[in-house]
Amino acid sequence: MDYGATTPVDPEIISAMKPYFDHYFGNPSSTHGYGMDAEEKITECRQKVAELIGADEENIIFTSGGTESDNLAIKGVAFQHLDKIKKKGPHIITSTIEHPAVLEPIKYLEKKGFDVVYLPVDSTGLIDSDELENSITDETFLISIMAANNEIGTIEPIRKIGEIAKKHDVLYHTDAVQAIGKVPLDVTKDNIDMLSLSSHKIYGPKGIGALYIKKGIKLEPLFHGGGHEKGMRSSTLNTPGIVGLGTACELAKKRFKQDTEHMKKLRDTLIKNISTIEESYLNGHPTKRLVNNAHFRFTAVEGESLHMLLDSKGIAAATGSACSSKKLRPSHVLLALGLTPEQSHGSIRFTLGRNSTQDDVEYVSKELGPIIEKLRNMSPLWKK
Amino acid sequence: MDYGATTPVDPEIISAMKPYFDHYFGNPSSTHGYGMDAEEKITECRQKVAELIGADEENIIFTSGGTESDNLAIKGVAFQHLDKIKKKGPHIITSTIEHPAVLEPIKYLEKKGFDVVYLPVDSTGLIDSDELENSITDETFLISIMAANNEIGTIEPIRKIGEIAKKHDVLYHTDAVQAIGKVPLDVTKDNIDMLSLSSHKIYGPKGIGALYIKKGIKLEPLFHGGGHEKGMRSSTLNTPGIVGLGTACELAKKRFKQDTEHMKKLRDTLIKNISTIEESYLNGHPTKRLVNNAHFRFTAVEGESLHMLLDSKGIAAATGSACSSKKLRPSHVLLALGLTPEQSHGSIRFTLGRNSTQDDVEYVSKELGPIIEKLRNMSPLWKK
Repeated sequence: MDYGATTPVDPEIISAMKPYFDHYFGNPSSTHGYGMDAEEKITECRQKVAELIGADEENIIFTSGGTESDNLAIKGVAFQHLDKIKKKGPHIITSTIEHPAVLEPIKYLEKKGFDVVYLPVDSTGLIDSDELENSITDETFLISIMAANNEIGTIEPIRKIGEIAKKHDVLYHTDAVQAIGKVPLDVTKDNIDMLSLSSHKIYGPKGIGALYIKKGIKLEPLFHGGGHEKGMRSSTLNTPGIVGLGTACELAKKRFKQDTEHMKKLRDTLIKNISTIEESYLNGHPTKRLVNNAHFRFTAVEGESLHMLLDSKGIAAATGSACSSKKLRPSHVLLALGLTPEQSHGSIRFTLGRNSTQDDVEYVSKELGPIIEKLRNMSPLWKK
Repeated sequence: MDYGATTPVDPEIISAMKPYFDHYFGNPSSTHGYGMDAEEKITECRQKVAELIGADEENIIFTSGGTESDNLAIKGVAFQHLDKIKKKGPHIITSTIEHPAVLEPIKYLEKKGFDVVYLPVDSTGLIDSDELENSITDETFLISIMAANNEIGTIEPIRKIGEIAKKHDVLYHTDAVQAIGKVPLDVTKDNIDMLSLSSHKIYGPKGIGALYIKKGIKLEPLFHGGGHEKGMRSSTLNTPGIVGLGTACELAKKRFKQDTEHMKKLRDTLIKNISTIEESYLNGHPTKRLVNNAHFRFTAVEGESLHMLLDSKGIAAATGSACSSKKLRPSHVLLALGLTPEQSHGSIRFTLGRNSTQDDVEYVSKELGPIIEKLRNMSPLWKK
């Protein structure tokens, strides 16, 4: 129930990676046979990543994951504008519910003198595209708004954002880490200039991701060195990881209809079942939500305790995202929806995956009610 | 003959990684059982990395590899001094023969206003420690000098550099990517403040590395985000990669004597055999050199042609390093030794590994002579 945090690597993907650990192990930068074998495979994988998002192979840069992709896109573009900062610096627009991998680099840039607008969201987690358009000034050079939220699963109006960005000649970056494989994305049709994705959310290995960068966009690299990836990301290419990501993208494309229908059916059952619990509320948007996401809050329930009791029953769920679940602060996403800190702390995320079953959903539905009841019976806040 | 570029992953390491792809696949930041299993293993691997270099587990940060480690160390420390830059900025000392993953971030910092001394090396590739000490000013905050050179294999006076750095209260960073597993290193005894290492040079997987950071040193992160690795490197931890690196470090420690004796014996045979070729010269230091490195230049031979002919015989060698072997510029390392561009272009690197055999060395020794002769017969520069 925590596929949003990470996924097991698909057996087919493990098999595809295997020979690149020990047989085709050459350094892709080497000009001998070992190196060329590796480089050839990397080109093939770059193509597979590109195909999933409607991009050209030459515009895909491999990174170590979503966080690096987001940092490279945002800081990479911003640092090109660093010398233009005077009193009020060039302008970035983002939303209040972005992943920390977007919010934190932007806060860092804000400290460096960049001017930032954090667009609010409505109670379902949607940004207002009119408000976005009205926020654009002559100084605006970047919009970074996620394709779908990692906690509540709300899907943002990606194409509309892309249209606005294009109309005003502003770059549009989207963190698509959660959306990939669940929401149809096409960087060309959606006017996306930069897109971050990660392998380990789509049944590929950890430690590998990619950034789509529209041709002509220059980024200041995070890693200076040997000049790999057109100088934008120096470092020996991680061939097995890239094979894992490429295969994961290939499978995500091939299985898109099957996967999304499967997850949607299970999710709808889960939402229907959990909704029968007294004073349970679905967080996020009722329809514009990821096919695998059921995020609920329960009156007078403490999320951490709920999480622990579920874990003791073998149910892995999440409070907040994995990236911030060790912190005790209420989720910035839930607060942005207008929930109180208490309501935020009483929330839990269930995220389904390709391997989830009807039995899993029934088991959770059966166990959840009594656990909630038990916690409420111990709570001074519960009415009875 | 190109273990310096990369190594195949050891079967034992592949076996160790395997369960972390699909069985123990949890996000180490998750607080449920899946997450905690992964986190526990990561702590164990951090310990193994630390043990190889005489460090404490808590001072190891996992990265995506050597390039990231070098960038994080150098820029991470330098950015702490960014606000002190006036006309002549704070001071960094490095050598002319560093890997691009050190030289390029330093050149970038130089453009930002930092003052840099590039220490020359002698004809064997050694820096002069007196010259190093004399270069230190009140402004100096960082010395970055590699443990062993990636092209010619020269081992720098690490402990002496550490002593000088400590005496003058300057931070000492060393790129130990090539030295690890071949040179005994101890960050405590050697007074090393930051040390970069990479997994794929020691029979671990690509895409994972580590940075040792002495307790108390603050770095500005390259990746802002969820706050992983004490906020110094946000990103979901790459559990299988970390298991690979941890196991590689464990094996490197266990097999240190056996591996180094094996490689040294083969290297000495290779050097002896190649030295019988007319007008062949060993580049680098005769004794202070990596146990696996034989780097030669041949009068009136073009290295690229030599490299291709060797490849056609199934011998993978290297001109320059893999990181720069696709560039046609002469190696900055060889030029720094005082070689002419022609001499640099007439050079080739053979690097041995744990799996190299006496047969490999004999095969190379047998094939090399006739290839050199063939190339010289076609060369207008050869005397005949």
